[in-house]
Amino acid sequence: MSQDLLPPIVMVFAASDPSGGAGLQADIMTLSSMGCHPLSVLTALTVQDSAGVEDALAIDADWVADQARALLEDMSVSAFKIGMLGSVENIAAIAEIISDYPDIPLVLDPVLASGRGEELASEDMIAAMRELLLPQTTLLTPNSLEARRLVLDEANDDDDPDLAECARRLVGAGAEFVLITGTHENSTQVVNSLYGENGLIRADAWERLPGSYHGSGCTLASAIAANLANGLDMAEAVRDAQDYTWQALANGFRPGMGQYLPDRFFWAREPEPGDARTPA
Amino acid sequence: MSQDLLPPIVMVFAASDPSGGAGLQADIMTLSSMGCHPLSVLTALTVQDSAGVEDALAIDADWVADQARALLEDMSVSAFKIGMLGSVENIAAIAEIISDYPDIPLVLDPVLASGRGEELASEDMIAAMRELLLPQTTLLTPNSLEARRLVLDEANDDDDPDLAECARRLVGAGAEFVLITGTHENSTQVVNSLYGENGLIRADAWERLPGSYHGSGCTLASAIAANLANGLDMAEAVRDAQDYTWQALANGFRPGMGQYLPDRFFWAREPEPGDARTPA
Repeated sequence: MSQDLLPPIVMVFAASDPSGGAGLQADIMTLSSMGCHPLSVLTALTVQDSAGVEDALAIDADWVADQARALLEDMSVSAFKIGMLGSVENIAAIAEIISDYPDIPLVLDPVLASGRGEELASEDMIAAMRELLLPQTTLLTPNSLEARRLVLDEANDDDDPDLAECARRLVGAGAEFVLITGTHENSTQVVNSLYGENGLIRADAWERLPGSYHGSGCTLASAIAANLANGLDMAEAVRDAQDYTWQALANGFRPGMGQYLPDRFFWAREPEPGDARTPA
Repeated sequence: MSQDLLPPIVMVFAASDPSGGAGLQADIMTLSSMGCHPLSVLTALTVQDSAGVEDALAIDADWVADQARALLEDMSVSAFKIGMLGSVENIAAIAEIISDYPDIPLVLDPVLASGRGEELASEDMIAAMRELLLPQTTLLTPNSLEARRLVLDEANDDDDPDLAECARRLVGAGAEFVLITGTHENSTQVVNSLYGENGLIRADAWERLPGSYHGSGCTLASAIAANLANGLDMAEAVRDAQDYTWQALANGFRPGMGQYLPDRFFWAREPEPGDARTPA
């Protein structure tokens, strides 16, 4: 490539998932696959295999801030993507950093639990996310469970908002756009709905894939960040990223005894089954 | 892809480089680019930009072992690649783990200093590497400076081995093959030399590229590990990986004010300058 031609640079804040299914590793693969250069700031370590998270440890907030500041002073970043945060202190540190870059779009994937149900955020962290990060968020990408948990009015036992009402409250709390994903709903199709300040912008439906996948949320949020960094508008960025993620899942593989992982480089594989998996 | 068709799985032990130039991030991109699925075990954190390493922190050895063991009990790994180790304790933990998998090829990139000269391994770590890892190493990939430092007889002031003699000593210390890279030599061409128990196997020369690159050693070692996982023999794995690395460097980009980074997905870019950098 011409040395004048830079790939768009996307900075992610994420936890390490050594299995390569989700987290920082998923972000790096997705962003690379979509033509961006990833900068990756570690927020937490995890121990996990394809069946579940065994342990997690937050990185000190000073270290999180130092990793990000060193890069932001050196390079021009086109989008931020935030995944698992690790601690209230990390949320505060990251919120302060991104407040210095108000013109860079921010995709916030509110990782409250793993796709397999392990809790990855405390109530204090959810409150800090709402207070410090939502007002700076360009696009929030909760699944339906996370959307409900982020808006629940705990003082009111009768509070049972539908997803459109969740989106309305999340926009009210400061997110410019909200994409609620339907993988956890009990429906024959997966329906993802994009909302903005005037309500529903678009809804897209996909055939529900058989099997259980690890890393679909990280892949989708990173793909949207890549598309925003590549200059697409929000509706187009979401539409294209959903298509990319569906294809990565449909081409997924099962490396161990647990879940399937997305193949984020499906487009580079040879088409015939049995062929060596080498770049085209 | 067919769900029966798995990509070869490669496990790397490496430090995080948030810039994406070297370390775990470089390994993930290189392995993905070459059709493998990366498992990535963190050994250390760093703070760095494109100009240098500002700080480094080793991960506790228990955490290193836990990350690896959880995955090795779940998945079938085709190659190991070891980069920056972080501590003597991490070296001991990793040596014990890989001793349980003697049939899996191990590429050891002895990261003693960054490409920019920052020290990343103590004398104690070098001694532990020699004693615990070299006897388990299929291929050692030092640059010429590292090769000299790994074999130096400190009791003998007159000891000044040439590179062939360094390789002979490293094979004597237990490495099955040694690839000494010539990027740090003062020559018009870069010459990489592969040695085995009977001495030189092959030497390859490339035009020396202008500019300074970050992550070439990690890229080369990971590319060789990918080729071994894909079933190539050692000479072919090394030859092909050198070609891949040279192309990644020749297509490199400069994201900040410091060094160039390899473009590990050069083969996926559009050929015309000015075109959007999107997957083919």
